[in-house]
Amino acid sequence: MIRVGIVGITGFTGLELIKILLNHKEVEIEHICSRSETDKRLFEVYPQFLGVFDKVIEPIDVDRLQRVDVVFLALPHTVSAGLAKELYGKTRIIDLSADFRLKDSEVYKTWYKVGHPAPELLHKAVYGLVELNRDSIKDSILVANPGCYATSVILAVAPVAKYVNGTVISDSKSGVSGAGRGLKEGLQFCEVNENFKAYAINGHRHIPEIEQELKKINNDIQVEFIPHLLPVQRGILSTVYMKVAEELDFKRVYEEFYKSDYFVRVVNNPPSLNNVRGTNFCDLYVHFDGRTSTLIVISVIDNLIKGASGQAVQNMNVMFGIDEKEGLGGYSYYP
Amino acid sequence: MIRVGIVGITGFTGLELIKILLNHKEVEIEHICSRSETDKRLFEVYPQFLGVFDKVIEPIDVDRLQRVDVVFLALPHTVSAGLAKELYGKTRIIDLSADFRLKDSEVYKTWYKVGHPAPELLHKAVYGLVELNRDSIKDSILVANPGCYATSVILAVAPVAKYVNGTVISDSKSGVSGAGRGLKEGLQFCEVNENFKAYAINGHRHIPEIEQELKKINNDIQVEFIPHLLPVQRGILSTVYMKVAEELDFKRVYEEFYKSDYFVRVVNNPPSLNNVRGTNFCDLYVHFDGRTSTLIVISVIDNLIKGASGQAVQNMNVMFGIDEKEGLGGYSYYP
Amino acid sequence: MIRVGIVGITGFTGLELIKILLNHKEVEIEHICSRSETDKRLFEVYPQFLGVFDKVIEPIDVDRLQRVDVVFLALPHTVSAGLAKELYGKTRIIDLSADFRLKDSEVYKTWYKVGHPAPELLHKAVYGLVELNRDSIKDSILVANPGCYATSVILAVAPVAKYVNGTVISDSKSGVSGAGRGLKEGLQFCEVNENFKAYAINGHRHIPEIEQELKKINNDIQVEFIPHLLPVQRGILSTVYMKVAEELDFKRVYEEFYKSDYFVRVVNNPPSLNNVRGTNFCDLYVHFDGRTSTLIVISVIDNLIKGASGQAVQNMNVMFGIDEKEGLGGYSYYP
Amino acid sequence: MIRVGIVGITGFTGLELIKILLNHKEVEIEHICSRSETDKRLFEVYPQFLGVFDKVIEPIDVDRLQRVDVVFLALPHTVSAGLAKELYGKTRIIDLSADFRLKDSEVYKTWYKVGHPAPELLHKAVYGLVELNRDSIKDSILVANPGCYATSVILAVAPVAKYVNGTVISDSKSGVSGAGRGLKEGLQFCEVNENFKAYAINGHRHIPEIEQELKKINNDIQVEFIPHLLPVQRGILSTVYMKVAEELDFKRVYEEFYKSDYFVRVVNNPPSLNNVRGTNFCDLYVHFDGRTSTLIVISVIDNLIKGASGQAVQNMNVMFGIDEKEGLGGYSYYP
Repeated sequence: MIRVGIVGITGFTGLELIKILLNHKEVEIEHICSRSETDKRLFEVYPQFLGVFDKVIEPIDVDRLQRVDVVFLALPHTVSAGLAKELYGKTRIIDLSADFRLKDSEVYKTWYKVGHPAPELLHKAVYGLVELNRDSIKDSILVANPGCYATSVILAVAPVAKYVNGTVISDSKSGVSGAGRGLKEGLQFCEVNENFKAYAINGHRHIPEIEQELKKINNDIQVEFIPHLLPVQRGILSTVYMKVAEELDFKRVYEEFYKSDYFVRVVNNPPSLNNVRGTNFCDLYVHFDGRTSTLIVISVIDNLIKGASGQAVQNMNVMFGIDEKEGLGGYSYYP
Repeated sequence: MIRVGIVGITGFTGLELIKILLNHKEVEIEHICSRSETDKRLFEVYPQFLGVFDKVIEPIDVDRLQRVDVVFLALPHTVSAGLAKELYGKTRIIDLSADFRLKDSEVYKTWYKVGHPAPELLHKAVYGLVELNRDSIKDSILVANPGCYATSVILAVAPVAKYVNGTVISDSKSGVSGAGRGLKEGLQFCEVNENFKAYAINGHRHIPEIEQELKKINNDIQVEFIPHLLPVQRGILSTVYMKVAEELDFKRVYEEFYKSDYFVRVVNNPPSLNNVRGTNFCDLYVHFDGRTSTLIVISVIDNLIKGASGQAVQNMNVMFGIDEKEGLGGYSYYP
Repeated sequence: MIRVGIVGITGFTGLELIKILLNHKEVEIEHICSRSETDKRLFEVYPQFLGVFDKVIEPIDVDRLQRVDVVFLALPHTVSAGLAKELYGKTRIIDLSADFRLKDSEVYKTWYKVGHPAPELLHKAVYGLVELNRDSIKDSILVANPGCYATSVILAVAPVAKYVNGTVISDSKSGVSGAGRGLKEGLQFCEVNENFKAYAINGHRHIPEIEQELKKINNDIQVEFIPHLLPVQRGILSTVYMKVAEELDFKRVYEEFYKSDYFVRVVNNPPSLNNVRGTNFCDLYVHFDGRTSTLIVISVIDNLIKGASGQAVQNMNVMFGIDEKEGLGGYSYYP
Repeated sequence: MIRVGIVGITGFTGLELIKILLNHKEVEIEHICSRSETDKRLFEVYPQFLGVFDKVIEPIDVDRLQRVDVVFLALPHTVSAGLAKELYGKTRIIDLSADFRLKDSEVYKTWYKVGHPAPELLHKAVYGLVELNRDSIKDSILVANPGCYATSVILAVAPVAKYVNGTVISDSKSGVSGAGRGLKEGLQFCEVNENFKAYAINGHRHIPEIEQELKKINNDIQVEFIPHLLPVQRGILSTVYMKVAEELDFKRVYEEFYKSDYFVRVVNNPPSLNNVRGTNFCDLYVHFDGRTSTLIVISVIDNLIKGASGQAVQNMNVMFGIDEKEGLGGYSYYP
């Protein structure tokens, strides 16, 4: 059994991690830790766990945490890197924050408006997008779990990145849980429901992350990314528009690229969030519009699973050499 | 392994059964049958199953079905009884329709406006509310799976049924999936969303079912039941108002009554649908208002799970003597 | 032209007042005042007013306010009474807070946990439910605008209040805007959407208000009132259950009672929120269930209009002797 | 008073027309006609009109219709053109169907899969986008009311159409009412709610309409248009991406272009559907991303008002020389 610690369990990604790991056959959850709500039982915060899971929420204790096999960090950025620094080398770390995604601490500072607390670890971390980096993840002891939008866009573009000319345009739409569980005026029911809007038009923090990964394939790639807030709880749909140098059988290019990837499915019809809500799948639909010579790829994921906690468990499975699918067998929440 | 056949898989209860049984360790799904969409693979109807489950939808074939260990019928009423008649005695049957819930064929005719197709089986069927009838279910070969509203109301009233005076009032509210997957004007998005209403005010078909079961405890009980349509997909919340003969520690009465029932939880705070969406739990909250001498019990379930397919699998587990919880370990869909 | 001041325009009832009064032919909005956001133009807070209404939000100034013909107070309780005290006798006041609804300052203290700031004004205020108190409102200079739930329940019960035996049970469900615009964890999208729950089970502040008004008709009446939070923005539906002393043609009783009331409609089918969202109507449906001898009345209103700002304008129209419907000609938001 | 006939009142655009025209000071609704539900009163179909408007739904009668001053056709395509043919020259016509939007009957046939029933009228019709064609509409007797998506995209692109290079990409998202009131599986609550998807990826019928109008400004313009279905009732948001030949003060270009247009507002913050739901406004937000040299314009409208019935009334106001705003003074439905 893999003994696991989870730090930051009052937010949505922490909650989702617990739900996934409770169904994982080779895991034992040793510690659930938080900066608040400590000494309560988890079901006092989340009543769904009554009678199911009676662990007590512990304060964060580095001594204890370093004795488990792997620690998941579901903490705000900078807090996460601070703790990772203390744990590094003593146990495996899967960090769900943004802290180890960007390789360049200057870029980090530009986008996150704060100096990086552990720049020396940046090039030790592996970017945990399993479909692109499976081999490096296997040998890694510090994995940077990708951002939710970044996952949806990178998986949509990677197979054709080398053919792309000009700017990739990703018009992305996310459910509200992507913004976390914190109290914000813009997330009140009457502000979101029956409404829809774009945000972060001056630049969203996932842009450098997307470009960093895609530039590894094609250094000329540039991404115009506009996120929108959907009045749903879960799910990201990205509609990606690309100009390509030549016309190929693009669907086949995608199928070939992902032929060994269980969690990426190239589908025959435009996918809806219902395809993937509650699952670790990323469904991709590929369409070439000959009239305008535009390649359109639509990508859907569940932002809390493939976009966060499911992907984190997928990373753990790869790191520990067990079945990549273990614990990730959920079915769509539809209806 | 228990070999299973499921008949009626294009509706929501059939779909939910498949999702539950795919995660059940002691079950093998042998046949999925339907009156429509036959010869397609399931993922052509429900794209979430692509790459996960590639069974072909078969036409209904009694010869094949009688060779499995248990058949789940997720069919419209009368159609279900017709098929049950042919299968009875040859395999175990769990019927999710209304056909075997009422013991009196005259009452059936009054409420369903049609003669019962197999009245001779009515008293062979056991009413499959595990918490009340566990022992009879163990020995049964034909189980009538309870209605969703009925489950929510009976579990809320049973522990105090013997103390109740006068009319029990159940004001119940259900998500839209309770109405099934059929095309109906009243279920179009623009009719349901941002809306709310009562329906079936002249009498809902679950009334005789609720009264039949509660009268076994207290023959004087009478139920005023008004259902309402909530703009959500899943979940039933019933607010039940009762006058009681004496004041007791009612919370304790409930805890005592359900002390051996994993899936019924007596909770400390008014439960929301979020407590149980995606699970087989029924959460009950008990409050006595001394000012008006009214006992108020609030009950929440997921109409498709504890109110339908989860309960059906719970029944199967009891019938086959395996762990009642097997396959039913899902966590709340929240968020 | 009636010159109007509105105090408290950053909340939902203030916003709704402005929208109604801008369409009122005999009104000029002289001052819009607030404790926050002052010196901004209204459209900086609510972008819908850009190019439509360019008034500046003023601080609250008693000198200015006493020079208009009527002041609407859309303030929190106690703040409202404090300002009313200063304005009383100098201009007409329509108070949308709870401060002048209860006649007994002890009852106020019990439910609002604070001493009343202006108890001497309590019996000067008229309870502004036009359908019951039209004549007193005509002559009033201080009107207490009723609570939203209270409006929905009192209108549902008043016509038969004298026939009622035992406890009136009102199972009420409200949209989220009823909770106001303040930032609250329970009102975040992910907490409300796809969810449903009861609240204030130990006693909601509208109970004494409802009983106070109904006891004027039948002093023995007692109300069991349980509110629930609906995942919609606007609307209240109350399902009211009553035992009555004799069986009458109840529909006719209601039609007769409200025959001169334009804004109350006795309808032939169970009403949905769609009947009234965006309007000042209260639709009532009356059903007697002979089986259980229970009279069921379903009432629907828009909580922000008939339940707050529309009713306030209706009160103003009555006070100034103009057409009761003026400014209140909106149509249902459906679809 | 302008005497008006409305044909096709059981759908959403017909319903919306009635609501707008009932508040229009210079209009009298003479006839409401339909192919179904005839001889009922309107409130039997839409209970919101009880006590408000008691007109009877008439069958379609050309003799009667030609005696009013203007007829609004809210009918399916081809049915509309058939009736327009009979009425042409006898009364003014505002057609809300797609029948007179495209000037070329071959293009019509390609996209609508049917021959045009009245090709001789195509060049008599004026495309009723007031902001671009106000003068021609003044003198017109047959106005083709623009499509909802087309309105949102054309208004977003027109001011810079002459500067655009390459393909204009419009990623558009619409609420469900845009699909009409007909019964469709894809519009059932459980299919739309908590879901999101793209559709008509192989080509949506509004593409030729958008290109036809924009090519009048820049013949080289080409549009890639992907519509998506939002889980809300009303509203369209289009995010438009353009490459431009030179960098200008684009916001000022838009302000200048629409300086005489009350219903187009160039806003300072990314607009949400809440800005315009329930109104005839189109709000535009203009952002130039220097990093990728992309001009991004976000446009929001209410699909049933500025995208259909409000625009139709705006057209009527222009045709009859009255205040363009008359009848269109609604405020946002928010909250």
